[in-house]
Amino acid sequence: MKLVIGNKNYSSWSLRPWLLMRQAGIEFEEVQVRLFTGNFAAEIARYSPAGKVPVLIDGEVTVWDSLAIAEYLAERFPEKALWPADRGQRAVARAVCAEMHSGFGNLRSQLPMNVTAVLPGCGWNVAVQRDVDRIAAIWGGLREQHGARGPFLFGEFTVADAFFAPVVSRFATYGIHLPDEAEEAKAYADFMLALPTMQEWIVAAREERDFLADDEPYRLAPDRPDAIIVNH
Amino acid sequence: MKLVIGNKNYSSWSLRPWLLMRQAGIEFEEVQVRLFTGNFAAEIARYSPAGKVPVLIDGEVTVWDSLAIAEYLAERFPEKALWPADRGQRAVARAVCAEMHSGFGNLRSQLPMNVTAVLPGCGWNVAVQRDVDRIAAIWGGLREQHGARGPFLFGEFTVADAFFAPVVSRFATYGIHLPDEAEEAKAYADFMLALPTMQEWIVAAREERDFLADDEPYRLAPDRPDAIIVNH
Ligand SMILES: N[C@@H](CCC(=O)N[C@@H](CS)C(=O)NCC(=O)O)C(=O)O
Ligand SMILES: N[C@@H](CCC(=O)N[C@@H](CS)C(=O)NCC(=O)O)C(=O)O
Repeated sequence: MKLVIGNKNYSSWSLRPWLLMRQAGIEFEEVQVRLFTGNFAAEIARYSPAGKVPVLIDGEVTVWDSLAIAEYLAERFPEKALWPADRGQRAVARAVCAEMHSGFGNLRSQLPMNVTAVLPGCGWNVAVQRDVDRIAAIWGGLREQHGARGPFLFGEFTVADAFFAPVVSRFATYGIHLPDEAEEAKAYADFMLALPTMQEWIVAAREERDFLADDEPYRLAPDRPDAIIVNH
Repeated sequence: MKLVIGNKNYSSWSLRPWLLMRQAGIEFEEVQVRLFTGNFAAEIARYSPAGKVPVLIDGEVTVWDSLAIAEYLAERFPEKALWPADRGQRAVARAVCAEMHSGFGNLRSQLPMNVTAVLPGCGWNVAVQRDVDRIAAIWGGLREQHGARGPFLFGEFTVADAFFAPVVSRFATYGIHLPDEAEEAKAYADFMLALPTMQEWIVAAREERDFLADDEPYRLAPDRPDAIIVNH
């Protein structure tokens, strides 16, 4: 199996299936394309008709879109229990993933994932806070219900944890303040950020030199002298 | 089973599971909430923690988000074959649904679903056309591949048809011109618009009187004298 991903520093959609496979112990070959550099459009078109990362290639089957990849892997590796076993819990897990997939537009546009940047306070507004509050409610509610069974949203690791991993990273980058009463949600964010697979991604992101100008609403120029400025 | 939906004229996300269930012959009780009227927030909060329509209630299980509802129904009614039976085709079907679920932002914001309105040319721009072209490529490619087996995207009716139904309606409202070479895609759009279940939805939309000002970027005032103007 081959997983095509973008820049680890910026590609929030790529982090989801990458973390899912790494954390579940599913072997794969990682293929990285540097977003918007060189022949990006032509390169990604070789893999996917949608022209975006991530893409999973499993022999004859090509799956694009992080959510479709997650469903595909869940079917392909039933022994990994990537969704909760209980029918009702599975429905809730899919609901929060699909909600994340299609929503939270304010968070997404105002706080683009930027793993290595430190930008506390940037991008915050009232609409972002509404998204933050809803996410804190999701995390807190699930942790309260499943905390006794393990440290992940549904106790054991599932697709839902992979889907919220980019949000955990965003909260760190932008110093997002979870409400004081959101103890469980805070603890979950800290736990996920410290997860070895997450740290592996973060360490790799630090080695990247691309500075994607369009994904940098809050920095005029890169911090590091060897950065490569990419415009698209 | 109970399906909570919004206004048929405006709620694109509600149309998906409604058409899915109707077309597949899954019985349900329809509960309609009028978006942003009266105690909308309180009313919808009774059904869903996400505060949005659609919501499916199946005894103890509450599922929100149109994509999670589709997955739930596909599991619950395996005999309805709501996804293609072939593993590779199923992956593609999920990919185009997930792509629709999370993407096509230009189409979504510029051409909000408005079943009964006639607004040819409104909202069009180059970014919208890129979305239109991608959709034409999805429809055309699938129809070419599966046309011999039936009139739907994958031959037989699947979740994918329900997911693109709101787009079919948008193309009609805004008089979207599919490229001339997109014969198959055009024929598919015509077929879907004429589908009796789709017509049933459209006829019901005509009976609604709410004019949601925030969903009406191209009309200063309603056409009908008995309209109820709703601001939120
Ligand atoms: N819904 C898709 C979104 C994928 C996506 O937008 N990927 C971005 C990078 S994070 C991309 O490839 N952009 C390239 C482009 O738009 O040209 C998914 O979940 O995989
Ligand atoms: N991703 C969700 C989106 C649902 C959604 O945004 N629904 C709109 C109406 S079409 C809504 O309920 N809006 C009410 C609100 O935002 O307060 C789905 O697929 O069900």
